[in-house]
Amino acid sequence: MTKPNKTTQLREMITRPQQAFLMEAHSGLSARIVEEAGFEGIWASGLSISASLGVRDANEASWTQVLDTVEYMADASSLPILLDGDTGYGNFNNVRRLVTKLEQRGVAGVCLEDKLFPKTNSFIDGNAQPLADIDEFSGKIRAAKDTQNDPDFCVVARVEALIAGHGLDAALERGQAYADAGADAILIHSALNTGEDILEFCEHWAGRAPLVAVPTKYPTVPAARLHDAGVGLLIWANHLVRASVAAMQQTAARIHSNVSIDGLPDLVDVDEIFRIQNAAELKEAERRYLPG
Amino acid sequence: MTKPNKTTQLREMITRPQQAFLMEAHSGLSARIVEEAGFEGIWASGLSISASLGVRDANEASWTQVLDTVEYMADASSLPILLDGDTGYGNFNNVRRLVTKLEQRGVAGVCLEDKLFPKTNSFIDGNAQPLADIDEFSGKIRAAKDTQNDPDFCVVARVEALIAGHGLDAALERGQAYADAGADAILIHSALNTGEDILEFCEHWAGRAPLVAVPTKYPTVPAARLHDAGVGLLIWANHLVRASVAAMQQTAARIHSNVSIDGLPDLVDVDEIFRIQNAAELKEAERRYLPG
Amino acid sequence: MTKPNKTTQLREMITRPQQAFLMEAHSGLSARIVEEAGFEGIWASGLSISASLGVRDANEASWTQVLDTVEYMADASSLPILLDGDTGYGNFNNVRRLVTKLEQRGVAGVCLEDKLFPKTNSFIDGNAQPLADIDEFSGKIRAAKDTQNDPDFCVVARVEALIAGHGLDAALERGQAYADAGADAILIHSALNTGEDILEFCEHWAGRAPLVAVPTKYPTVPAARLHDAGVGLLIWANHLVRASVAAMQQTAARIHSNVSIDGLPDLVDVDEIFRIQNAAELKEAERRYLPG
Amino acid sequence: MTKPNKTTQLREMITRPQQAFLMEAHSGLSARIVEEAGFEGIWASGLSISASLGVRDANEASWTQVLDTVEYMADASSLPILLDGDTGYGNFNNVRRLVTKLEQRGVAGVCLEDKLFPKTNSFIDGNAQPLADIDEFSGKIRAAKDTQNDPDFCVVARVEALIAGHGLDAALERGQAYADAGADAILIHSALNTGEDILEFCEHWAGRAPLVAVPTKYPTVPAARLHDAGVGLLIWANHLVRASVAAMQQTAARIHSNVSIDGLPDLVDVDEIFRIQNAAELKEAERRYLPG
Repeated sequence: MTKPNKTTQLREMITRPQQAFLMEAHSGLSARIVEEAGFEGIWASGLSISASLGVRDANEASWTQVLDTVEYMADASSLPILLDGDTGYGNFNNVRRLVTKLEQRGVAGVCLEDKLFPKTNSFIDGNAQPLADIDEFSGKIRAAKDTQNDPDFCVVARVEALIAGHGLDAALERGQAYADAGADAILIHSALNTGEDILEFCEHWAGRAPLVAVPTKYPTVPAARLHDAGVGLLIWANHLVRASVAAMQQTAARIHSNVSIDGLPDLVDVDEIFRIQNAAELKEAERRYLPG
Repeated sequence: MTKPNKTTQLREMITRPQQAFLMEAHSGLSARIVEEAGFEGIWASGLSISASLGVRDANEASWTQVLDTVEYMADASSLPILLDGDTGYGNFNNVRRLVTKLEQRGVAGVCLEDKLFPKTNSFIDGNAQPLADIDEFSGKIRAAKDTQNDPDFCVVARVEALIAGHGLDAALERGQAYADAGADAILIHSALNTGEDILEFCEHWAGRAPLVAVPTKYPTVPAARLHDAGVGLLIWANHLVRASVAAMQQTAARIHSNVSIDGLPDLVDVDEIFRIQNAAELKEAERRYLPG
Repeated sequence: MTKPNKTTQLREMITRPQQAFLMEAHSGLSARIVEEAGFEGIWASGLSISASLGVRDANEASWTQVLDTVEYMADASSLPILLDGDTGYGNFNNVRRLVTKLEQRGVAGVCLEDKLFPKTNSFIDGNAQPLADIDEFSGKIRAAKDTQNDPDFCVVARVEALIAGHGLDAALERGQAYADAGADAILIHSALNTGEDILEFCEHWAGRAPLVAVPTKYPTVPAARLHDAGVGLLIWANHLVRASVAAMQQTAARIHSNVSIDGLPDLVDVDEIFRIQNAAELKEAERRYLPG
Repeated sequence: MTKPNKTTQLREMITRPQQAFLMEAHSGLSARIVEEAGFEGIWASGLSISASLGVRDANEASWTQVLDTVEYMADASSLPILLDGDTGYGNFNNVRRLVTKLEQRGVAGVCLEDKLFPKTNSFIDGNAQPLADIDEFSGKIRAAKDTQNDPDFCVVARVEALIAGHGLDAALERGQAYADAGADAILIHSALNTGEDILEFCEHWAGRAPLVAVPTKYPTVPAARLHDAGVGLLIWANHLVRASVAAMQQTAARIHSNVSIDGLPDLVDVDEIFRIQNAAELKEAERRYLPG
C-alpha cells in the first residue's frame, strides 16, 4: 500500500482530531533524521535554514536559495514539509511564484506571516516590528490558494499580532480575515512564556479554522493542554539546529584542545553517515546498471 | 594590523615548519563554529557537504551546488578554506572553471584526487576503484596552476594509490608526478588503521614537497609523530558532521518520546543562534541606515 | 478541453504516423517565441544553451545550471520540451538524478548521446571523439527508464557512430542495443551534407523503433524525404540562436556607428516585450489581489 | 599593457569629460557581442534580463537569479558592467549583500532606483508607481558605498520622480539627496519623448555630480545635445533583446512555414557560434593539458 501524497498527508495532519507534530529540519541531512526518528512531518524553519547557511533570519538568503535548501530536504525525506515562508518574499505575485515552485519540488505547504519584507525574526525586538496591512496580506493568502495546482497543498497564515503587542482583539480580527481569505490553518504565535495569550486566543477562536502553535517560548505548557484548547498542530521549531550547534561547538573545542581525534565521545561512525546517505542503494544500482 | 589574504594564510600553513591543522566544516554555520573554536583553517569536506545536503558522496551534487555551499562557508568565516574538490568534476577544463570560481568566492585552495568522475568515497570499496591516468591527472594539476590569478591559491594533489592497493612505489611515483606538475602539496591518503603505510611513504618522500594527511582511519597515531615524519598539514576530516548527526538523532528521539521540548539537555539557546548569526550587527546597521 | 500532459504530447509526436518537428530554444524568451510561432514542441539545444550562457558546448555549465535554464523554458511555454542532455553529465547515477529533476521541472523528455563526459560538440573534430562503451551507455538508458515516474516521459538515445566514422554497422548495432535497453526513440546523427548515411541507416533500421534526425548539416534533404525513410521526428536544432546572433551583431554595429538609437530597423517595440512577458496578466492580478 | 580594472574603467567613463556609452546585454552571449562591436561598457538591463529569462520585470526572478545571469555576462566579456539593480531587492541590508556579491563576480557597478520592492517597469503605468522615501533610499546608497571593497566600484542612483509625475523640484531634491548620500552618479529618467524634462533637469542640476540618461523614449534627441547639457553617460537600454526577438520571431515563422531550414536568410553559421564561444582556445588547451 503506497502512502498518500505528501500534500494529502499534511492536510490530514492539520484537519484530523488527533494532534499532530512537525519537527524542525534545515537540510537534507536533518530532514532524513527527522523521518528516521518517527515524526510524521517536517517544519522547514526560516531561522534554522538561515542559521545553517550562515546568514541572518532577515531574508539575506534569496527566496530561490531557500527553495534550493527545501528541495534537498524534500528529496531526502518522504515526509510532508511545511515551509516557513516568512512574508512570502515580496508581494502577492512573489507568493504565486513561490507556491508554484514549492509544488514542483514536492513541498506540501507554506506558512506565510503578516509582517513586512525583509522580515526579522519574531524574537528580536518583537514589539518594534510593523505588521502587514490586513487586506494586503489577505490578498497574498488568496493568491496562494488560487495558484496551487494540488488541492491538498496547504497555506498556513501566521498571525504576529500578539508578539507585536497589538492584543487579543487584533489577533482575532487578523485570524478571521486570513481564514476568510482561504488559509487552511492559522498559526497563532506568541513570545509569552506562560502561553496564556495563546490559550486565550484559542478560547475566543472557538474552532473556526484549524490552529497551529509554536511553543518555543512556552515549552512547559503541555501539548495535551494546547490540544484541549484547540491547537491541532504543534511545531517543534528549531531544536535540531540548536542541538547540532552545541555538539559541533563541543567537538571542535575538544579536537582543538586535544590536537587529536582519538577517543572523541558523541560522534557517529563514518559508516553511519554512509547508511544515512543510503550508499548501499548506489552499490546495488552499480551492479544493475554498470557493465560486468 | 589586518590579516593576510586567505590564500596567503593557507600557503603559510602548508609551507611553514610548525604543524598546521584544518577542521572540517560543511555549511556556513559549521564554518563559523570552526573559527570560533580557534582553528586556523577549514577543510570543506566532500563527504560532509554531500551528507549535509542529503545526497551521496558520488558527485550527486553538481559542482556549482558544491560551489554554492562553499561560498556560504567563505562568507561566514574569515578563515582560509581548502575545498575537497573530488576529481575536479570532469577533465582539466572543468578544473580551470572551478579554480576561477573558487578564487572569486574567496576559497583559498582546492584538493584534487586522482580518481575518475563520478567519484565514490575512498572508504567504500577502496580497492575496487580505478585511478586516473597519471598524465591525465598531472594535466589537471598544471591546468589548475596555470589558471589561478592569485599566486598564493593552493592546489593540493591527493594520491589514492595506497587505498587502491597499488602499493608504495606507485604512490611515490604519483606523488612525484603531481609535484612535478606544480602541486603545492601532496595529500597521501590511507585507510590502514596503523598509519604504517603513511609513515613509510613519508620516509621515502623525504621532503620533496609539503605533505598533507587525513588520519580518519588511524586516529591513534599522534599528530606529533606524523609531523616528525614530515606531515606539515593534518586534516580532521568529518568530525563536525558526525557530531551533529549524533546530537540531532538524540534530540529528535527525545522530543518524539517526550512529546515535549521542555527540559531538553544539550541545546544552545535561541539567543546563541542569534549571536552566531551576528544579529547584533544588523540591529546596529538598522540604526545607521534606516530613517529615524 | 485541456491539453494532455507535456510528456504525453511529446510521446505522441514521437510515435504517431504524421511527422513532427521540434524547434530549438535556449531561454524562456525563445521558448515562448517558438510556441507563438505555432510549433508543437521545443528542442532545448545544448549548443544553443551553452552559447547563450556564454560558455562552450563542453559541459562548462554544470548540469544544474542547464537545469535552471530549461526550467525557465518550461515555465515560459506550454509546449513539451526535449532536453539535449549531452552524455547525461556523468554515469548512470547522474542520469537518474537528472531524470527526476527534469520531471519535477515539467520537461517532457531527455536525449542522451553515446559519447564521454565532458563532451564536445559533434561538429568539432567529430572523428576524433571517442564513443561510450555500448553496455555502459545502455545501462544509462535503462537507469533513465527505471527512474522516470511518468510513463510518458521520453528517453531518446543519440547514436554518434556515423559522425565518429565507425560506419553503418556500428551505428545499427548501437541503435539496436539502445532500443533494447528501452530507449523510446533513436536519434541518428550525421555531419554528411547529402544525408545519404542517414537514409541508408533508415533503410536498414526498418522501423524497429521511432527515429529522430537533426538535419543541420543536410538542410537540402526535404523533410518529406526523411519522413518517407522513417524519420518521424525532425529537430531544427540551433537556428534561433543563430538568428539572434546575426540580429544582435547588426544592431550593436549600427548603434555604435550611428551613436544613436533613432530609426533602427528590425527591432520590436518595448510594448512587444511587455506583451511577450504577459505584463497584462500582472496588471489584472494586481487589481484582484492588491488592496483598493 | 594590461587594461585597468573593470571598476576603474567604469569610473573613468562616468567622470571623464568625453561622453561615454553603455550598450545593453542580457546574457553571456549578448555581452560578448557588445564587446566585439566596439563598445566600452555594458548595461545589464533588468527589463532585458527578465525578458530573456521569460519572466516579468517585476522582481519575479530572485536577486540571486539575476546575479547568476550577470555572472555569465562578466565571465563572457572583459568590459565593465553596470547592473540595473532595480530597487536593490529589499532594504539597505539586501543592498549590502548585493554589492558584496557583485564585486566578487567582477561587476563594476550597480544602479539603484528610488521605487518600492517589488518594482514594476517604469514604462508601465509610470504615474501610478509610488516612490521610495528619500531618507530610506539615501540610506541604501550610503550602505552600498560603505560596503564596497573596491573604491572604484560605482553606485548610480536613479531618480524616478519625473516619470512618477512629481515634477522638476522633486527630481532635483532627490538627486541632491542621493548625491549627498554618496552616489557616484545620478541617473535621471524620463518617459517624455521630447527629452525636454531631462534637459531642464540638467540645466538646474548644473554639474553637481555626474549625470546618466537612458533615451529609450526620446531617441531623436542627439547624444551630443545631451552631452552639452551635462549627461556624461548614455545608456542604450534594451535594443539587443528587441533585435533578437524580431529575428527569432521571423526565423521561427519562416521555418514553420517552409517546413525546412534550407536557405534561411539572416543567420550566422554554426562556425560563427563556435568562434564566439572561443572553441579554438579549448582545442589548443586540450593539446596542452591532455595526454598524447
